[in-house]
Amino acid sequence: MRQAGRSLPEYRALRATGTMLDACLSPELASEITMQPVRRHGVDAAVFFSDIIVPLHLVGVEVEIAAGRGPVFRNPVRTAAEIAALVRIDPALVEERGEAVVEAVQRTVAMLAEEGEQRGEPLPLIGFAGAPFTLAAYLAEGGPSKDHLGARSLIHSDPAAWADLTAWLAEVTGRFLALQVRGGASAAQLFDSWAGALAPADYRRAVLPASEAALEPVRALRGEGLDVPLIHFGVGTGEILADMASIGVDAIGVDYRVDLDDAVTRIGRDLTVQGNLDPVLLFAPEDVRRRAAHAALASGLAARAHVFNLGHGVPMNTDPTVLTDLVRTVHEWRATEESAR
Amino acid sequence: MRQAGRSLPEYRALRATGTMLDACLSPELASEITMQPVRRHGVDAAVFFSDIIVPLHLVGVEVEIAAGRGPVFRNPVRTAAEIAALVRIDPALVEERGEAVVEAVQRTVAMLAEEGEQRGEPLPLIGFAGAPFTLAAYLAEGGPSKDHLGARSLIHSDPAAWADLTAWLAEVTGRFLALQVRGGASAAQLFDSWAGALAPADYRRAVLPASEAALEPVRALRGEGLDVPLIHFGVGTGEILADMASIGVDAIGVDYRVDLDDAVTRIGRDLTVQGNLDPVLLFAPEDVRRRAAHAALASGLAARAHVFNLGHGVPMNTDPTVLTDLVRTVHEWRATEESAR
Repeated sequence: MRQAGRSLPEYRALRATGTMLDACLSPELASEITMQPVRRHGVDAAVFFSDIIVPLHLVGVEVEIAAGRGPVFRNPVRTAAEIAALVRIDPALVEERGEAVVEAVQRTVAMLAEEGEQRGEPLPLIGFAGAPFTLAAYLAEGGPSKDHLGARSLIHSDPAAWADLTAWLAEVTGRFLALQVRGGASAAQLFDSWAGALAPADYRRAVLPASEAALEPVRALRGEGLDVPLIHFGVGTGEILADMASIGVDAIGVDYRVDLDDAVTRIGRDLTVQGNLDPVLLFAPEDVRRRAAHAALASGLAARAHVFNLGHGVPMNTDPTVLTDLVRTVHEWRATEESAR
Repeated sequence: MRQAGRSLPEYRALRATGTMLDACLSPELASEITMQPVRRHGVDAAVFFSDIIVPLHLVGVEVEIAAGRGPVFRNPVRTAAEIAALVRIDPALVEERGEAVVEAVQRTVAMLAEEGEQRGEPLPLIGFAGAPFTLAAYLAEGGPSKDHLGARSLIHSDPAAWADLTAWLAEVTGRFLALQVRGGASAAQLFDSWAGALAPADYRRAVLPASEAALEPVRALRGEGLDVPLIHFGVGTGEILADMASIGVDAIGVDYRVDLDDAVTRIGRDLTVQGNLDPVLLFAPEDVRRRAAHAALASGLAARAHVFNLGHGVPMNTDPTVLTDLVRTVHEWRATEESAR
């Protein structure tokens, strides 16, 4: 469950001092924070503690993560000249300066192996990176925005500069994702949080090619024997699910607005689905929440395989005991399912 | 075009002093502001200048419209006790205290008749009101929010209180809409800005019945010979378009993420569609914008009838001359279409 950590008191204690970026780039902190929800909730996999703007920070873009707000860039990038200056930065700096990321992943993978040994089952680590459009949405506005008009208008007003920007972002974010796989992550998720803000035709034409390119550095690792499943996720993406599935990924994250069996109809049976309990049910009475989880699990049976998850991030004010109970609900349902077969 | 006024210097001049609510409740100001985009852009209809929280203000709920933020309630309404206290307020106060709204509409209709006489064609006024869910989304949070978790969790945690709240809101907002029709509005639009944040099953079960109820006061006017078309609009509603169309409305507003011919496939051919140029194209080069407008117009031919519009509100920083050009583009396309037939 994405952002499951931030609702935990033990997370807040670890993050009491220092910035979010400091925490992302400290192998000790990042690995420990990644482990917190694994230990507390008994989930079957860990999501690496990081942020989509880490690779931009690594290559020298001035950015911070403002508490309660999100990424804030000192200099927004929206004109052709600003884009030209940005894309002159060598993406290889991600690897040159990314030692802390690799170390954090390695450390986490070792901790997960230990925890998995105790449980008697492997505990995979899911690495992730932001998709070029979502990174561009922040860059063009200088921070979070409602309709992402900055990046979206660039698509139409300067297609060449847009192509340069997203090609560069694809390389930078793709290298960051590959770094995590190199460190030992067992799956790689591409996060396009804001893709749902685009008209589908614009998504297909001006965004999807860069997302596909962002997966290249991970695919290139296959030659070295590192072949991990690829997950593609966004929010409000009902209209573009099939497109998101079309770039050779193994799994699609589905938000809570599309039932999983509906999603399978759109993307086909050859892909795994991930999702999609509405996070609002974390605030519902126990029986309502459990029934909804069972419904999502039943709906997921339509797919080749189903990674149970929320259909959006974990809200900050979630009661952690509710998350623990949700994990138990899923485990019990699956145990019953399996014994019935 | 919704919120077309706020990008105009003449609007900013009129609104230089006084609050948004003051302007909504001044027949002189509201009518003049409604006319501004009609005169400047040459559009074929006017959208009444008002706000969805006006009826709540009329019945005595303490609310203001904060510039650049939106509706802010002094006392959020989220517990059963708070809801019980709210719904004790008599919805009939909307009519009792709504004289200024009726006057503003009457004045506007007279001004539109005069303007229409000069043009040699009628200029209808579109009235509007917020749907119960969208009003509840603001009420439960006390203001704007990202995921509307307050209202959405109420649906699951206290269905009875939720039903009371939305039934009351339906009556209050429905009476506000009927007031505008009584004053002379030629069409009535129900605005469910945030309906797209709901899981479709929740929308159908816990939201749509109240939206249908909100149209009752307008339908009741048919007995008095006032029979106006009803429009239903929301944002990000691709998954629930058919549901939105199912409550006996005449037209569906479609946002830019669903092509109009796709929308017709979902809602059937018996309804008029309204939409749906992506507002981001207001910042695109002229030829790109015109091509996109032509595409929307061509797509709209799939429907019984098509009211050309943006697929979302007009962004604040839009260049007004671009809006004027867009209206001209639509008129020229339609003239060519007609002469070709």
